[in-house]
Amino acid sequence: SKYEYVRQYESDDKLLPNCWIVIRIDGKAFHKFSDVHQFQKPNDKPALDLMNRCAERVLDQFRDVLLAYGQSDEYSFVFRKDTVLYNRRASKLMTNIVSQFGSSYVFYWKDFFPEKQLKFPPVFDARAVLYPTNLTLRDYLSWRQVDCHINNLYNTTFWNLVLKGGLTNQQAQEKLKGTFAADKNEILFSQFGINYNNERDQFKKGTTIYRERVEVPMENGQIKIRSKITATHCDIIGDGFWEDHTYLLDPYKDA
Amino acid sequence: SKYEYVRQYESDDKLLPNCWIVIRIDGKAFHKFSDVHQFQKPNDKPALDLMNRCAERVLDQFRDVLLAYGQSDEYSFVFRKDTVLYNRRASKLMTNIVSQFGSSYVFYWKDFFPEKQLKFPPVFDARAVLYPTNLTLRDYLSWRQVDCHINNLYNTTFWNLVLKGGLTNQQAQEKLKGTFAADKNEILFSQFGINYNNERDQFKKGTTIYRERVEVPMENGQIKIRSKITATHCDIIGDGFWEDHTYLLDPYKDA
Amino acid sequence: SKYEYVRQYESDDKLLPNCWIVIRIDGKAFHKFSDVHQFQKPNDKPALDLMNRCAERVLDQFRDVLLAYGQSDEYSFVFRKDTVLYNRRASKLMTNIVSQFGSSYVFYWKDFFPEKQLKFPPVFDARAVLYPTNLTLRDYLSWRQVDCHINNLYNTTFWNLVLKGGLTNQQAQEKLKGTFAADKNEILFSQFGINYNNERDQFKKGTTIYRERVEVPMENGQIKIRSKITATHCDIIGDGFWEDHTYLLDPYKDA
Amino acid sequence: SKYEYVRQYESDDKLLPNCWIVIRIDGKAFHKFSDVHQFQKPNDKPALDLMNRCAERVLDQFRDVLLAYGQSDEYSFVFRKDTVLYNRRASKLMTNIVSQFGSSYVFYWKDFFPEKQLKFPPVFDARAVLYPTNLTLRDYLSWRQVDCHINNLYNTTFWNLVLKGGLTNQQAQEKLKGTFAADKNEILFSQFGINYNNERDQFKKGTTIYRERVEVPMENGQIKIRSKITATHCDIIGDGFWEDHTYLLDPYKDA
Ligand SMILES: Nc1nc2c(ncn2[C@H]2C[C@H](O)[C@@H](COP(=O)(O)OP(=O)(O)OP(=O)(O)O)O2)c(=O)[nH]1
Ligand SMILES: Nc1nc2c(ncn2[C@H]2C[C@H](O)[C@@H](COP(=O)(O)OP(=O)(O)OP(=O)(O)O)O2)c(=O)[nH]1
Ligand SMILES: Nc1nc2c(ncn2[C@H]2C[C@H](O)[C@@H](COP(=O)(O)OP(=O)(O)OP(=O)(O)O)O2)c(=O)[nH]1
Ligand SMILES: Nc1nc2c(ncn2[C@H]2C[C@H](O)[C@@H](COP(=O)(O)OP(=O)(O)OP(=O)(O)O)O2)c(=O)[nH]1
Ligand SMILES: O=P(O)(O)OP(=O)(O)OP(=O)(O)O
Ligand SMILES: O=P(O)(O)OP(=O)(O)OP(=O)(O)O
Ligand SMILES: O=P(O)(O)OP(=O)(O)OP(=O)(O)O
Ligand SMILES: O=P(O)(O)OP(=O)(O)OP(=O)(O)O
Ligand SMILES: [Mg+2]
Ligand SMILES: [Mg+2]
Ligand SMILES: [Mg+2]
Ligand SMILES: [Mg+2]
Ligand SMILES: [Mg+2]
Ligand SMILES: [Mg+2]
Ligand SMILES: [Mg+2]
Ligand SMILES: [Mg+2]
Ligand SMILES: [Mg+2]
Ligand SMILES: [Mg+2]
Ligand SMILES: [Mg+2]
Ligand SMILES: [Mg+2]
Repeated sequence: SKYEYVRQYESDDKLLPNCWIVIRIDGKAFHKFSDVHQFQKPNDKPALDLMNRCAERVLDQFRDVLLAYGQSDEYSFVFRKDTVLYNRRASKLMTNIVSQFGSSYVFYWKDFFPEKQLKFPPVFDARAVLYPTNLTLRDYLSWRQVDCHINNLYNTTFWNLVLKGGLTNQQAQEKLKGTFAADKNEILFSQFGINYNNERDQFKKGTTIYRERVEVPMENGQIKIRSKITATHCDIIGDGFWEDHTYLLDPYKDA
Repeated sequence: SKYEYVRQYESDDKLLPNCWIVIRIDGKAFHKFSDVHQFQKPNDKPALDLMNRCAERVLDQFRDVLLAYGQSDEYSFVFRKDTVLYNRRASKLMTNIVSQFGSSYVFYWKDFFPEKQLKFPPVFDARAVLYPTNLTLRDYLSWRQVDCHINNLYNTTFWNLVLKGGLTNQQAQEKLKGTFAADKNEILFSQFGINYNNERDQFKKGTTIYRERVEVPMENGQIKIRSKITATHCDIIGDGFWEDHTYLLDPYKDA
Repeated sequence: SKYEYVRQYESDDKLLPNCWIVIRIDGKAFHKFSDVHQFQKPNDKPALDLMNRCAERVLDQFRDVLLAYGQSDEYSFVFRKDTVLYNRRASKLMTNIVSQFGSSYVFYWKDFFPEKQLKFPPVFDARAVLYPTNLTLRDYLSWRQVDCHINNLYNTTFWNLVLKGGLTNQQAQEKLKGTFAADKNEILFSQFGINYNNERDQFKKGTTIYRERVEVPMENGQIKIRSKITATHCDIIGDGFWEDHTYLLDPYKDA
Repeated sequence: SKYEYVRQYESDDKLLPNCWIVIRIDGKAFHKFSDVHQFQKPNDKPALDLMNRCAERVLDQFRDVLLAYGQSDEYSFVFRKDTVLYNRRASKLMTNIVSQFGSSYVFYWKDFFPEKQLKFPPVFDARAVLYPTNLTLRDYLSWRQVDCHINNLYNTTFWNLVLKGGLTNQQAQEKLKGTFAADKNEILFSQFGINYNNERDQFKKGTTIYRERVEVPMENGQIKIRSKITATHCDIIGDGFWEDHTYLLDPYKDA
């Protein structure tokens, strides 16, 4: 039609080739969302499990997502460095992922909260970020996991002070102002008998979902390589995880 | 932390000021989605009503969306020309809208399909497009409504030929190849006694949702101006709709 | 060759259609450049005339540049709203203009400084900015002309205080701190007998170069419309200039 | 002033960190420029030397340019991967480089063409391209050097056929259609007694300018490391040059 010229106003947003593409989603106003749905503080296991379920759905639907890392109300999805999905158009990648995640959140809600009614549809934002090297990608993931650790230690101490210690939010905040990790560990242990190390890894470390390479023995004695979507709550800052799963990043080492 | 430098890899995607921002979403592989959920062909009223419900939710949640136009598996949301929501960051606008829409689709599904199970969470893509003038914005909306008309006339004829006329998909396609609108109208009328004009406006024209300006009489005799989210299936290509609702675009005329 | 894949790393930078494209260039470190070449303070007429000559060369070479405005070490070039030159690629437009301007500066130097040796090749930067409406374009040009006025009034007073008034730079700066336009006019008049109004328009207003529409009578009695590159030092903030030259912006009024 | 809001229409064009930034400039319509200035065909040594002089000026003025490669009417400038010059703003980098190059071309013209008048100021375009890895950067440079080789072999044969062989341009073009490198070498040798290998390296390989690391012995017997802008016409496709100058790219190997 004579109106078709308006297509020319669309802009190209192809992402630079040969870089890691990270799509990070984050829940909109989950402070309020968590309150309304009475999520346990500081960590609501079903809520976090639901986040993980949605992320698995994303990996299941988008074959080029190599790995995902999630904590709190956020999830980061890492596309293969050489993906050509949607010709690397940023909008397409972001919006497909965030919309898959958000609709899955509602879809799977009842599996994790059989007794609890979802009050309103949640919203997530998303962004695309490029990392040119394996090192910068690992630093990105480390950034998110350190963030998880810092927030979780703070929140765990805070809510113990409030819920068990009888402090007001204001008082707990005051008490924690300027404290270091060691101080918070000490408060937890001395006041509440909690050894922070014994807290769930899922809460302390967040969740990493990746395509595990598994060897499947076949009838004829040979071995088939398959990939299996696997979740773990381990440390991804140190080299251990990456040395155990060299097939994730190493193929891109010299690119 | 020492990893925070990775934030600098995020790029700024602020949209040019003083332009209409259109966010268009479109269902991913809705050909298959419609099949799996046995949507009526060519138009499934509950499915279209559900799309409209989700769009209303978007307008309800995002005050700066002035107007929306939807048809088939797509919806376009028009932000006020002068919106500063999220500092006009394209990613934020796109992903908030698409994620609100997608999660609402699952959330409200049961209100429109009480008997039908949603089989899997749907996915939508989104893009942001800028239109610098009222004329280009109107041409954009006309483009979508013409698209609605062309597709709907084709699909209506096609599915009558197949479902009532006994043709195979292949045969129906052949028969319609190269035909004009008048030919399709004629086929519908002569073979199936259908006057295309009498088809539902919702199917022929799509749905326009906008903030209607309503005058609310107050106790003291004065009048309050309120806005009310209103849906219509009227023509938005001609001047009529816009002359009847000058408050929508005219404030931006001389900007 | 097998290396050609590297072309895919180039990114598309097409500018939004139907917006005014402004390319502004600005001399790099012209503080030093002016010193080295002993430009008269605060205004060196040959230097400013040379800038204008270069701008004329740009208009001469790039037919889609409608108008240019210059002052000090900067020049702004306005492309027709509907230009498709280089498919509106920002890099191409910016670099063509800035490179034409810079090489012209050296080329024409001797015509304006027959006695003065150019000591080193000057450098200019450039940027592309979009303005969606006639109003924003005019406000852009007004911004630059106001800047010219403010700087020129300040510099004129400053250098009179220093060169004729015997103040040190430091003292002149002190004296002018916090003064308003009226104060500076007063200093000029009472201390140096200078009526600022009588200063050259070229210094007070900068230079506007545009394609004037001229009517050329032909032998057969008919009239031909031609355009002629013309320079003026008039006010372009008020409506006067634009009313006298409606053919410049008006064609784009309803676009 | 009240007009300052127009600054907000400027967009941010910061380039992704930790990637090689290549600025490639190319002469505008140098086909015509070479004709007008009667450059020798296919290679005019003074013209190519002038290009090199301008590139040296660029390296001299922009400390973060590590290396440059030039041939014909083009030059590529490689910025250090970690440069923060102008905060990596693409427009600033492109326009500074191209404008330095273009004004230098006019400035140094007389040093290379003492007898020849420059007829008009030349124009160059520029673009910025990102390469995330050492490999892609080297492939980029190889792409340009292969291009040099292919064009030069073709042009050398073509102009020998025309200037010495008496063919028309049309006939020479016909004769070379579909020929391989070996065929062109053969034509050159059998018809004109030219061994292509003996042609100047500058013509066959182009020019690479880099900051050579030199050791300067000091009075006290110690050694100081200095860098010196150096030009070479060697092969940069193979590993040799890079192995001899590991300090150029290797520091960025693991980044
Ligand atoms: N009670 C509870 N709250 C949680 C849990 N996971 C996340 N949240 C809440 C705590 C934080 O207020 C919020 C996440 O912080 P954000 O920085 O993303 O802020 P929020 O989503 O409120 O605002 P935003 O729209 O992202 O700027 O989500 C949980 O397991 N239990
Ligand atoms: N049966 C039925 N199908 C519908 C209805 N509305 C939309 N659809 C289907 C018909 C089309 O195949 C599809 C929309 O066309 P699209 O061009 O968006 O293609 P699709 O979503 O399959 O692929 P995409 O991922 O958007 O490229 O949705 C409806 O009311 N009833
Ligand atoms: N003496 C003299 N100086 C002038 C004249 N026109 C411009 N200039 C100088 C005065 C200013 O220091 C300078 C223009 O100011 P800018 O803000 O563009 O600064 P500058 O070019 O030094 O640095 P930049 O690289 O643009 O950030 O040029 C003139 O006619 N006479
Ligand atoms: N005679 C002669 N011509 C040369 C020499 N170096 C470059 N040229 C000419 C030959 C080519 O026509 C031209 C470079 O080719 P380009 O693809 O850059 O084309 P041109 O600059 O004409 O157009 P453009 O504006 O870049 O699209 O410059 C030389 O040393 N001698
Ligand atoms: O999705 P389509 O088929 O309507 O076509 P498009 O939107 O122009 O294509 P894309 O979704 O790839 O932008
Ligand atoms: O959302 P926050 O608070 O984590 O902070 P941010 O992500 O840096 O901010 P934004 O969402 O505005 O990019
Ligand atoms: O160059 P200035 O000082 O006029 O200021 P600017 O143009 O706003 O700054 P920049 O050149 O860095 O865009
Ligand atoms: O300029 P050419 O002919 O080498 O080709 P290009 O550089 O790929 O084209 P453009 O200058 O338009 O980017
Ligand atoms: Mg955020
Ligand atoms: Mg959040
Ligand atoms: Mg969060
Ligand atoms: Mg599409
Ligand atoms: Mg679709
Ligand atoms: Mg569609
Ligand atoms: Mg500046
Ligand atoms: Mg300057
Ligand atoms: Mg300046
Ligand atoms: Mg080119
Ligand atoms: Mg060229
Ligand atoms: Mg060239």
